[in-house]
Amino acid sequence: MAAVILAVDAMGGDHGPGVTVPASLELLRSYPECSIILVGDEASMHALLPYRWRQDPRLRLLHTEEVVTSDDSVVVALRKKKRSSMRLALELVEQAQAHVAVSAGNTGALMALAKNILKTHPAIDRPAILTALPTQQGSCQMLDLGANVDAQPEHLLQFARMGDIVARCLAGQERPRVALLNIGEEDIKGNEVIKKAHRLLQESPLHYIGYVEGDGIFKGEADVVVCDGFVGNIALKVSEGVARMLAQRIRAEIDRSWWRKAVGGLAWPIWQGLKRQMDPALYNGASLVGLRGLVVKSHGGASQAAFYNALAVALREVEHDVPGLMLRELAQ
Amino acid sequence: MAAVILAVDAMGGDHGPGVTVPASLELLRSYPECSIILVGDEASMHALLPYRWRQDPRLRLLHTEEVVTSDDSVVVALRKKKRSSMRLALELVEQAQAHVAVSAGNTGALMALAKNILKTHPAIDRPAILTALPTQQGSCQMLDLGANVDAQPEHLLQFARMGDIVARCLAGQERPRVALLNIGEEDIKGNEVIKKAHRLLQESPLHYIGYVEGDGIFKGEADVVVCDGFVGNIALKVSEGVARMLAQRIRAEIDRSWWRKAVGGLAWPIWQGLKRQMDPALYNGASLVGLRGLVVKSHGGASQAAFYNALAVALREVEHDVPGLMLRELAQ
Repeated sequence: MAAVILAVDAMGGDHGPGVTVPASLELLRSYPECSIILVGDEASMHALLPYRWRQDPRLRLLHTEEVVTSDDSVVVALRKKKRSSMRLALELVEQAQAHVAVSAGNTGALMALAKNILKTHPAIDRPAILTALPTQQGSCQMLDLGANVDAQPEHLLQFARMGDIVARCLAGQERPRVALLNIGEEDIKGNEVIKKAHRLLQESPLHYIGYVEGDGIFKGEADVVVCDGFVGNIALKVSEGVARMLAQRIRAEIDRSWWRKAVGGLAWPIWQGLKRQMDPALYNGASLVGLRGLVVKSHGGASQAAFYNALAVALREVEHDVPGLMLRELAQ
Repeated sequence: MAAVILAVDAMGGDHGPGVTVPASLELLRSYPECSIILVGDEASMHALLPYRWRQDPRLRLLHTEEVVTSDDSVVVALRKKKRSSMRLALELVEQAQAHVAVSAGNTGALMALAKNILKTHPAIDRPAILTALPTQQGSCQMLDLGANVDAQPEHLLQFARMGDIVARCLAGQERPRVALLNIGEEDIKGNEVIKKAHRLLQESPLHYIGYVEGDGIFKGEADVVVCDGFVGNIALKVSEGVARMLAQRIRAEIDRSWWRKAVGGLAWPIWQGLKRQMDPALYNGASLVGLRGLVVKSHGGASQAAFYNALAVALREVEHDVPGLMLRELAQ
């Protein structure tokens, strides 16, 4: 396996180097084929490095003092901060010094900078954000999760093609079932955009299975679920919100008496099993697809385990040659 | 308390009279101030009535053989089936023989028939579907859940006004916090419709608190959450799908060994407590708002307990004079 080089925006996210640096070291320990360039404030990063890593050739630090904050507008990120850690990480990909950039920073700024620096893929009009979501049996790829507030039918078709490639590369599905997210009532089924996208998908060579409703995503009815960024973002956040509310309500039920706490303690392996499957950290790492280079976005509030997972997603995408396949297949 | 008369479409839903009739009897037993007119096939309904209810003046049967099925198009429901149980139940409300109609039938047909028979409220352009959703601390009212695939800013303002009235009447909130459902990224925050609705709501006398994201609904950030029917339906179905997936995964974790099953059994009171709060039956009963009469829609697959809850929602809306308040307040 050839060496994979990740460019990591060490300053992005709510916790900055405190999370990104240890997660990066963890990845280097687990994957000997991998190298990392940490971009950010050298002193802060250096202070977090155990002695042996300070001289390891697989780890490089690229110093900069500028950071794109979560409040920075796209305009500020694009025009004012010419040496932000986010921008430099993307430039490393553009200059072919890294295979993929990973950032937990501001999504809007990351998408805008990525388009500006890496450029949109020639066969794609609008890049999208894609992530894996858990289903009853496994997982599915969903896009767009918020890169575009609306989409034309042709864009939804392009999203479907990209989702299909990622599902084949990463989830190893030979012929992923592609579906459009829609609502169920017969007579108001979908708006004009959805209906037209439905026809485009039927005529495409994809394994298009038609519409799924919101609950169908989690039943595992499709391997790729396509929607515009507004609907996708709402669906993603709703799913996170419900899961969190249920966890909190289970907690409250257990805390109601000492007897319940004891039973809750006995049930510890059950919670652990569930956590292993459902932990949001497991699903951290969304891909910006439709660019000429690979970019992975981590949740801003990611823990070390979650950021590690985003790095692992990035590594997997390089190893499975997602960009190569995108280039070859989308050109057709 | 004056008598409240409910017109119940006994034939609607997946289970028909087998669910609607016993649920109706349960309501009559619990609420002595309530009367019910069951609309449907007399023989089927009669067969389900214990002797004492056959002569009770609080229960009336209205016979018809026609039924709107879940596959019937709106056109069929409107034009062909002039004596469907759904239509007759709505006509009872229109003729002031009942205060509210309840049906578990086809949503599209119910909305179309309701608009046709009861007419849209003069201050409202488009009726909407509203339901209560559970939050971390309590519940919130959300609309539209699928009556309209899209909405103009003025429609969203009207939805907000209706949601505000229902929250005050039913949830007893004096000054409900009204929010627009939106996505979070600064630079792509909302489309033009949302932005314009945001301005309209800021200028309105409502207690408008701005945007909430998908996870904010379940954190209880607002008492009324407003969105178009496409987004609302996806959000509702996603929340149901995630809850069902989690329940199924917990089940699978418990079933993995006899020891886990034993612990799962000990945890029974915890599951019961959780079920009491989160049972979808508890949240069954969506209101069609913006009409000149009251209509409550039950889930098609509702169990007896769930259909009972839809009847209880209908009863509560009459007792709290939701239609009267709508008439008085929306006229202003």
